[in-house]
Amino acid sequence: MKKHNIYFDNAATTPPFSAPETSFVFGNASSPHSLGITAERFLNSARKEMAKIFSCRENEIIFTSGGTESNNLALLGFALANKRQNIRIFSAPWEHPSVLEPIRFANELGFAEAIILSDFNKIISHEVCLVSLSQVSHETGDIFNVSEIAATLKKKNPKIIIHVDGVQGFCKESLDFANIDMYSFSGHKIHGASGVGGLFVRNGIRLLPILHGGGQENGIRAGTENICGILQTVSAAAQLHVFRDENYLRVSAIKSEIAELKHLLPDVFENSLTKETSPYILSLSFIGIKGETLVHLLSEKGIYVSMGAACRSRKKQKSLLETMGFSKERAESAVRFSFSHLNTVEEASIVKEIIIDCVSQMRRVLGRR
Amino acid sequence: MKKHNIYFDNAATTPPFSAPETSFVFGNASSPHSLGITAERFLNSARKEMAKIFSCRENEIIFTSGGTESNNLALLGFALANKRQNIRIFSAPWEHPSVLEPIRFANELGFAEAIILSDFNKIISHEVCLVSLSQVSHETGDIFNVSEIAATLKKKNPKIIIHVDGVQGFCKESLDFANIDMYSFSGHKIHGASGVGGLFVRNGIRLLPILHGGGQENGIRAGTENICGILQTVSAAAQLHVFRDENYLRVSAIKSEIAELKHLLPDVFENSLTKETSPYILSLSFIGIKGETLVHLLSEKGIYVSMGAACRSRKKQKSLLETMGFSKERAESAVRFSFSHLNTVEEASIVKEIIIDCVSQMRRVLGRR
Repeated sequence: MKKHNIYFDNAATTPPFSAPETSFVFGNASSPHSLGITAERFLNSARKEMAKIFSCRENEIIFTSGGTESNNLALLGFALANKRQNIRIFSAPWEHPSVLEPIRFANELGFAEAIILSDFNKIISHEVCLVSLSQVSHETGDIFNVSEIAATLKKKNPKIIIHVDGVQGFCKESLDFANIDMYSFSGHKIHGASGVGGLFVRNGIRLLPILHGGGQENGIRAGTENICGILQTVSAAAQLHVFRDENYLRVSAIKSEIAELKHLLPDVFENSLTKETSPYILSLSFIGIKGETLVHLLSEKGIYVSMGAACRSRKKQKSLLETMGFSKERAESAVRFSFSHLNTVEEASIVKEIIIDCVSQMRRVLGRR
Repeated sequence: MKKHNIYFDNAATTPPFSAPETSFVFGNASSPHSLGITAERFLNSARKEMAKIFSCRENEIIFTSGGTESNNLALLGFALANKRQNIRIFSAPWEHPSVLEPIRFANELGFAEAIILSDFNKIISHEVCLVSLSQVSHETGDIFNVSEIAATLKKKNPKIIIHVDGVQGFCKESLDFANIDMYSFSGHKIHGASGVGGLFVRNGIRLLPILHGGGQENGIRAGTENICGILQTVSAAAQLHVFRDENYLRVSAIKSEIAELKHLLPDVFENSLTKETSPYILSLSFIGIKGETLVHLLSEKGIYVSMGAACRSRKKQKSLLETMGFSKERAESAVRFSFSHLNTVEEASIVKEIIIDCVSQMRRVLGRR
């Protein structure tokens, strides 16, 4: 059997770009000698470059250990800073666990009231409250029009604070930051370093730290900064940012190629809630075939896709697709393809043909068509 | 002027060992395909290797983003898990901010009562309480005999839980873990990766997570695991662990060489509270000369030392040495030398001679002797 090496699970993690030449940087950015000062300078320049991507001020970028910590900091940090008001935090049931779990926890501690709802347009609140929504669904690639939702909500009540989980959208989808107050990103989803992420926090938004100690990151996030990882991540982000439109077209063609399966095989459906989806993620259900079975079969052939979000994939949780309103049949037969600009249309053609073979054969065995 | 390159600030951060060959590992350990399963296997083997160092079970090792997070998880995680009891947490005033700040925070939130005291032998408590102490002082290298203190406390009250901040002692000092319930370590202090650390948590000790999400690390620490960083760190730890006695002797000779300054120059004092100090850290005060001045002068010559702990060095906080009871004069004139087995006695001799010159000259200029 020919073994391919086609990686279509880029929403789980991406191969890191090789480190920039500055990766020789060594020293603790808080050390008083010249090595420390050089390290701090590199850190500052990385922050400056990241701030350019956000068109924000340097002090509005907080580096963290990843997307999960960024979401935790945004939500728990805000809940802690406003614990006396017992604010409300709104989010959708299909958000990532690193959004839903901190909200649940803030609720449990009595620091905030968690309100999980599907339609953000229903939010009417006259007090300070926090709305957390993702730019792109990690499960289906749905693009939730966050800048529009944010504008509508802020028009109703300017005191509404908007947090966007940008982990799957950062440097991939464009975004108008006008009404966004906080935005989380992750390094390893954009060919940056594992263990590195960040949070844009608009000046004026007060957060309390969730990691306490040496006062790094403007007192918001303690811990010696992982400078090489940050430099590598910022360099990857800058690269993706510059080539965003080009990459978008490239990845769109790859997704289209795989999406043809909807027409080439019977009973194949694309799972999405919105009209617009990201070209980086495609969720397809092959009715009658367990997603898990197809994922393992493809894995044996060196083709790497997943049933859905990595952090749920190997656990026995209710599937996110069901939470999103799709049938159990659709959820169980779903496969998530997620792309990078490093993929090619040729890879997609190979995968498409193999899936046609596999699915047809499996359905014959199962006595289905 | 000859520019040296002598790094004696290893308590701030250490040069990372080159990554082990396994650093090609790629994939999200939660992904369902063979790349994910391979990544998970590497993670498991790293955990197994780390557990060997601790002579503990694999599920007693939690990987985190660093020493700061490990301390936060131990202290806040325990306070959160026991918030209904409003337990007491004891610690010493000279502990690292990543210990004192979470305790202060838990106290502020009303989850635990913070009690900061200098003499742990005074602790008499008949309830569950947490005692957090460091194995080795990051400021002076003082070895606090934690296993003895732990044994004494547990004899008084077996319900006392002992957390040890092992960041400066891990793989350097030996430790009897018999009475230790939690132990924090950091990657970048032992030639491992920045942004990687961990916590040994004895089975039976219940912690709540401080980062919530996908349920990684046995539900205690969410976030995609930084597998390459973890592998690199575990490999560094294993190496240091095996050569611990050898390295100890080597570093002791280096420290002795620098410590001769006490006899070669007048008014030079070693700062330490205890009889026993780690050979990896030496704090010397050169009375009449600002530590900062000497640090900068040495830095210009390519010799890297610090005034004290990195995370305070560049801030205007009350010095730790004063907190420890040393005079302002001693505190202001202190320089911290911290070593690695990668250093040599020859380097120490060079530094010693240069310091003799510098200090003598500065004292002449200042009209002191």
